[in-house]
Amino acid sequence: MSENKYVYFFGGGEADGRTGLKNLLGGKGANLAEMTNLGINVPPGFTITTEVCTLYYENDENYPKNLDQQVKEALERLEELMGQEFGDVEDPLLVSVRSGARESMPGMMDTVLNLGLNDQTVNGLTKKTGNERFAYDSYRRFVQMYGNVVLGIDGSEFEEIIEAKKEEYGAEVDTDLDVKALKELVKEFKKHIKELTGLDFPEDPKEQLWKAITAVFGSWNNERAISYRNLNDIPHHWGTAVNVQTMVYGNMGEDCGTGVAFTRNPSTGEKKYYGEYLKNAQGEDVVSGVRTPKDIQELKNDMPQAYRQLVEIFEKLEQHYKDVQDVEFTIQQGELYMLQTRTGKRTAKAAIKIAVDMVDEGLIDKETAVMRVDPKKLDQLLHKRIDPDAEVDLLATGLDASPGAASGEVIFDSDEAAERGNEGEKVILVRTETSPEDIHGMAAAQGILTSRGGMTSHAAVVARGMGKPAVAGCEAISVDYEKEEFTVDGRIIKKGECITIDGGNGEVYYGEAPTIDPELDKNFEKLMKWADNFRKINVRTNADTPADAKKAVEYGAEGIGLTRTEHMFFAEDRLPIVQDMILATDTETRKKALDKLLPMQKEDFKGIFEAMGERPVTIRLLDPPLHEFLPDHGELLVEVTELRIKGNNPEKLKEKEKMLKEVERLEEVNPMLGHRGCRLGISYPEIYEMQVKAIFEAAGELALEGKKVSPEVMIPLVSDIAELKITKNSALKAAQTVLDKLGVELNYTIGTMIELPRACITADEIAEEAEFFSFGTNDLTQTAYGFSRDDAEGKFLAKYIEDNVFENNPFQVLDQDGVGKLMKIAVDKGRQTKENLKIGICGEHGGEPSSVKFCHRVGLNYVSCSPFRVPLARLAAAQAQIEDQA
Amino acid sequence: MSENKYVYFFGGGEADGRTGLKNLLGGKGANLAEMTNLGINVPPGFTITTEVCTLYYENDENYPKNLDQQVKEALERLEELMGQEFGDVEDPLLVSVRSGARESMPGMMDTVLNLGLNDQTVNGLTKKTGNERFAYDSYRRFVQMYGNVVLGIDGSEFEEIIEAKKEEYGAEVDTDLDVKALKELVKEFKKHIKELTGLDFPEDPKEQLWKAITAVFGSWNNERAISYRNLNDIPHHWGTAVNVQTMVYGNMGEDCGTGVAFTRNPSTGEKKYYGEYLKNAQGEDVVSGVRTPKDIQELKNDMPQAYRQLVEIFEKLEQHYKDVQDVEFTIQQGELYMLQTRTGKRTAKAAIKIAVDMVDEGLIDKETAVMRVDPKKLDQLLHKRIDPDAEVDLLATGLDASPGAASGEVIFDSDEAAERGNEGEKVILVRTETSPEDIHGMAAAQGILTSRGGMTSHAAVVARGMGKPAVAGCEAISVDYEKEEFTVDGRIIKKGECITIDGGNGEVYYGEAPTIDPELDKNFEKLMKWADNFRKINVRTNADTPADAKKAVEYGAEGIGLTRTEHMFFAEDRLPIVQDMILATDTETRKKALDKLLPMQKEDFKGIFEAMGERPVTIRLLDPPLHEFLPDHGELLVEVTELRIKGNNPEKLKEKEKMLKEVERLEEVNPMLGHRGCRLGISYPEIYEMQVKAIFEAAGELALEGKKVSPEVMIPLVSDIAELKITKNSALKAAQTVLDKLGVELNYTIGTMIELPRACITADEIAEEAEFFSFGTNDLTQTAYGFSRDDAEGKFLAKYIEDNVFENNPFQVLDQDGVGKLMKIAVDKGRQTKENLKIGICGEHGGEPSSVKFCHRVGLNYVSCSPFRVPLARLAAAQAQIEDQA
Repeated sequence: MSENKYVYFFGGGEADGRTGLKNLLGGKGANLAEMTNLGINVPPGFTITTEVCTLYYENDENYPKNLDQQVKEALERLEELMGQEFGDVEDPLLVSVRSGARESMPGMMDTVLNLGLNDQTVNGLTKKTGNERFAYDSYRRFVQMYGNVVLGIDGSEFEEIIEAKKEEYGAEVDTDLDVKALKELVKEFKKHIKELTGLDFPEDPKEQLWKAITAVFGSWNNERAISYRNLNDIPHHWGTAVNVQTMVYGNMGEDCGTGVAFTRNPSTGEKKYYGEYLKNAQGEDVVSGVRTPKDIQELKNDMPQAYRQLVEIFEKLEQHYKDVQDVEFTIQQGELYMLQTRTGKRTAKAAIKIAVDMVDEGLIDKETAVMRVDPKKLDQLLHKRIDPDAEVDLLATGLDASPGAASGEVIFDSDEAAERGNEGEKVILVRTETSPEDIHGMAAAQGILTSRGGMTSHAAVVARGMGKPAVAGCEAISVDYEKEEFTVDGRIIKKGECITIDGGNGEVYYGEAPTIDPELDKNFEKLMKWADNFRKINVRTNADTPADAKKAVEYGAEGIGLTRTEHMFFAEDRLPIVQDMILATDTETRKKALDKLLPMQKEDFKGIFEAMGERPVTIRLLDPPLHEFLPDHGELLVEVTELRIKGNNPEKLKEKEKMLKEVERLEEVNPMLGHRGCRLGISYPEIYEMQVKAIFEAAGELALEGKKVSPEVMIPLVSDIAELKITKNSALKAAQTVLDKLGVELNYTIGTMIELPRACITADEIAEEAEFFSFGTNDLTQTAYGFSRDDAEGKFLAKYIEDNVFENNPFQVLDQDGVGKLMKIAVDKGRQTKENLKIGICGEHGGEPSSVKFCHRVGLNYVSCSPFRVPLARLAAAQAQIEDQA
Repeated sequence: MSENKYVYFFGGGEADGRTGLKNLLGGKGANLAEMTNLGINVPPGFTITTEVCTLYYENDENYPKNLDQQVKEALERLEELMGQEFGDVEDPLLVSVRSGARESMPGMMDTVLNLGLNDQTVNGLTKKTGNERFAYDSYRRFVQMYGNVVLGIDGSEFEEIIEAKKEEYGAEVDTDLDVKALKELVKEFKKHIKELTGLDFPEDPKEQLWKAITAVFGSWNNERAISYRNLNDIPHHWGTAVNVQTMVYGNMGEDCGTGVAFTRNPSTGEKKYYGEYLKNAQGEDVVSGVRTPKDIQELKNDMPQAYRQLVEIFEKLEQHYKDVQDVEFTIQQGELYMLQTRTGKRTAKAAIKIAVDMVDEGLIDKETAVMRVDPKKLDQLLHKRIDPDAEVDLLATGLDASPGAASGEVIFDSDEAAERGNEGEKVILVRTETSPEDIHGMAAAQGILTSRGGMTSHAAVVARGMGKPAVAGCEAISVDYEKEEFTVDGRIIKKGECITIDGGNGEVYYGEAPTIDPELDKNFEKLMKWADNFRKINVRTNADTPADAKKAVEYGAEGIGLTRTEHMFFAEDRLPIVQDMILATDTETRKKALDKLLPMQKEDFKGIFEAMGERPVTIRLLDPPLHEFLPDHGELLVEVTELRIKGNNPEKLKEKEKMLKEVERLEEVNPMLGHRGCRLGISYPEIYEMQVKAIFEAAGELALEGKKVSPEVMIPLVSDIAELKITKNSALKAAQTVLDKLGVELNYTIGTMIELPRACITADEIAEEAEFFSFGTNDLTQTAYGFSRDDAEGKFLAKYIEDNVFENNPFQVLDQDGVGKLMKIAVDKGRQTKENLKIGICGEHGGEPSSVKFCHRVGLNYVSCSPFRVPLARLAAAQAQIEDQA
């Protein structure tokens, strides 16, 4: 291929291009070439490469030197092949000029059809088709499209002229216009063009062609196309190709038709042709809905020969492309032409079935099958969701805080939600935000909706932990606790009215929207088993309860990567004890409260160990700042002020004042960067000591029963080896004391979260003490960027993504350029000290496919994610390994 | 030197050791050897190396094999040299056994004197000195010391026995006890020892010696010594040496004496011998204060020969060591012995004078002079401070938030402080914490004291900006606004009482403490000029006002590295406009408020540009989150609640409610990581636009007057190149518009703060857009460690440092292991993209000596610090360069 080849011809059973040249020829052009080479009947034509587009823009909108000559040669070859000539008044060659980028950008760029018509050639078309009305209708359409696309005249102006003409002729629809009317329209269009542009409509087909080519290249940079590329992460420098192709017509009579079809059902995956066609129609008629298209199966009776050809082509294309194809075809006077083929988009369910079927059919291997399913889409299968076909009444959209759909009566008070929920009623708890005091209400509700707070707000974190649907930070709704109602966009929703939330996309609907249950079938199991055979990296789960742990094991989790012990502190019966512990001013009092918590934590851990069997269970010691367990400062302040002024309850005032003082003492300016994690463990060693005791009493007692348990103790928020050393030594001591007392030997390890930039940078030192690393990429992202997730997501980050300042939300998709590099540094330094250091990730990124793949590539041993994301991580991990081998 | 040499002999004009072997012999031992080699009269003896100490602890408290033999040989050599024998009943050799570490650890380890005495040899001592009382007093002291140091008996028990004996004999002081009483004491001491330990007091001098040596090595790991080392960053593995040295006595009669002296005045630096001595006395008598020692100059008359010898030695030592020496000496029967020499500690003022004088005397070169002054101590010279000799009444100690000393009447209300301060009264504003509404009170006060908040609290930052003394976070005081008083440790200080604060050390005193003014003299200027000639790295200042800028230039600043534009927003007349800007809900209203601020900011910048002349001036665009400019949330909440319940002022309620709503809207969970820095600039481009306009209108107008100005616009808190690109482009546009309008050409640059870990990691990308980097190490430290300075310093960080978890406060001393490595990455990556990229630092570390040196080493172009720290930075920068060349 010479560097100067800008034009690729296809037709007559052979083509210069092929599918592999998609980057150069665009998707459409490459596949037209490929089909031509396969001997499939494709209207001949040629593709001007994407390179020309790039050069055109690089050179101030000038074409490369040789292009003119190459187009001329291709056109001559086309004329020869078709036995027609461009501009021939007897039998004119007519072409379409279409864009075609690497990635499909549907409807974003422009197309010109019927190019080559003028006042002379239109007669040739009449002669050849014997249909003057058809000829003039085609001409009318060409002038209109050209005026719009090439000359930039607003399409509605032509529509107005048509409307006037229809009125004049008493025509109801376009097709009622006769030849005379159409002829007049052509004239009037041309006149309008002349008036607006001062130019005559070009009668020379070559001039038409060049202007149309330029217009299509120009459409690459129209506003629509630019913002589409921004939205879909398509690089602006890619450029589009231009396809010039002989026209074929599906609307020449009853032996004509046009249709679109999939080689298999893209919704269910069923191996059955799927599609629609219309007789005597053009492509746009199928889509526009003016006429109701017929099922593709009916073509068998309507036009048996064309159907047979089509089926043959379907088989050929699937055999060739080894995947479901989405095609467009036209039947012109009984002859079938293929106008497009591309890989068919499909639902998650279909993707899985098709992949598994194709392996069974021997069409693809298992690796390919595993690569065929987009892990991101598995979410569709694992949660209840709103029926996409249902009619719904959308109220507002918030953050997709915890996936799943749920309906219920709106309740604003947590006590009431708890009471009614526990009686079996379906309620949705609606709050501005939640606090530990709402836990019982959240637990009894079907779902949670808050008007404030981000993806790590209390509501979001707790709901995800509970596996309960939640929409958080839905700022469009305004909650009024006193009136027990919320308003949204002027509508008032009162307590007791029914709403539905979808935590998978953050949407809130009025009334009970119909939902679809999770659909896990044998195909899913089969595919996941293949994936497990391929992947190198383990998949664990983040689970704080035995129920979550069990669910995760069902979904294939190979251990627990993160148990957040603080979530156990929030339980209704424990919070007062936790508060006693926090408010203690001396170690003795604190220890007394801790002694009460110990048996509770022990039972928690026992349940989790039992659920996980001999799989490893990583338990993180207390992480959040203590004031998270105390009442809200603002609410207390209001209460105290009220009590002070009213003066009617001095005892309560005293009690509340005391609490207020404590809350103020513990309050922090930036709690995320405050007194939390191992800093608490160093300040109050007795807290970690209690937790470690609980872990090893639980593990030890199970071991005495002959059960195998593998606890891993994890120290959070280490910034310096000294912190790890201190907390680890005290944990070791506490663990050994318990085990000695029980007379049990047990394998266990003590490791650390790596969630601060300084921990990454000094990972070589930290690895001297750590028996494992686990990346906490939530905090690492917060500190690397200096973003508070709570503040950023609700405020500037949403705008950043909207305005394309950032491509992705780094809290959802791991930032490989920055945070990822810090991780890489930590992995390298950690393994420099300990060659076989076990390293995992337990931040939320552990369940995001591109992040899982990154973790595989930097050599982590495992990812850990919420139970529902385990299958997704398994699949992504397998894909990463297959990509590696490729 | 063989590896097995553990004992180094000195005496008879030659020594095995020398000063260079300080690590092996300890400071004392090395210098005794050196003096011996210099021909100075030193009582002979030997040093057992620090290596023995290390081996002793490594081998479970066993000595290395050859030690026994080597000590025996050294002892024999000593006996031969002295013509005495250990344990000789006629003329016994008596020795002292003293510790001596690499770094002096005064009073931390143990000493045994008069070793070698027993019931027989005491008679020999009597015979030789003809003084039985002296002999028995020495014996009594030996038994007492031995019992205490070697046998671990509490010293007070021996004192009790002495007290009883004094009562028995009717003696008032120890010296009243006669020979009989002393003999009885020796017996009783021995009896007491036998009772407590079950062991007889060892009569064998060799046994005494070995036990004493072991006791001294053992004292290396006594609690006192360990915590001293922790406090002073002395590694525990260094170990101590043991010096065994012939005893000499300054208390044998009127031809005896003892003293300590400096070769120059360590307080003023004056070239004049400085010290004290006592006739017929032991070393401890000089220190204890029982007798008043005489000025060393009087020795000239008292003992002219000894004085002459001493002066000769002084000269010899200074010539040899090229530095001021701090010596101990004893005169025994007319003969002068040197017992110790070491480098003399001195004040900053003395250090400078001595260094400059010694260059003038040709004793040292300028490099050495520059190295001789500890930059940290320059602070003493540049701020008013409390007279160290004054008697003061310390109330409490808080954080040294802003250096300088100030006295005044306690005032709690900012309005009152402003009023009285502006009338010329001296007041100290005392608040729990300050907010923008206190600015006018702070400006008019002599100093500020707060009970809450860290080194970056509002009070601290603003006070440093104003160059006003402040003590922040003084948690020991409890402020009661209603009663207008504060309590501290049970004491009540009422409004109007006078206190003094020292922001240089965080101390708060009752009453008006006498202060010393800054002392800058010619010596200082001379030394700083030398320093400037050596240093490679530039020194700039952080300055927000023309006054600060001028002061900094006086102190040698070569530009401004950081102007914080937000400090201009806090001014009393501007805050309402700033609030209007913040509360604006549409761009038009916001722009109106900004239009009002523009001329004010312009005047600010003009003043600063004028003060700096053609020196570069880096102006940082708005950085803090907007709610910092709004009223406190808690206070508003209380106000609104009160107004609601009272219901007597619906209008005010409405107004306050509106403000409350806005404050809540803008409130952030972690403001440090919130909507601030360039994120504001992206959300509200009009804010940065106004600031850039103000900068270039100011600069442009000055340029039109023919003045040279060099503005550098700095974008804060960039985490990703996209943020810089957007804000830079909009700044470029705004700047160019102004300059075009004025018709002025101006050189200026636009760069970025590097203050987030992600910015360091992606510095290669960021450098594509940035014309300079400036490290914001405050934020970088916060994010690298995940520490909020506001929260950490008041809470866990203080404890971390106290407990030696961390060596230093990383907000004061740059953390070279973590934060420094991130900086290094950023420097390397930045210069990878732009070879000559200008890189500076404007965090507070820019004024801390070890951090300045680090900045020099990683290749920064400049450091920037507060005006008062400029000289310090200049000196540290010079030292870094000199160290480099060494």
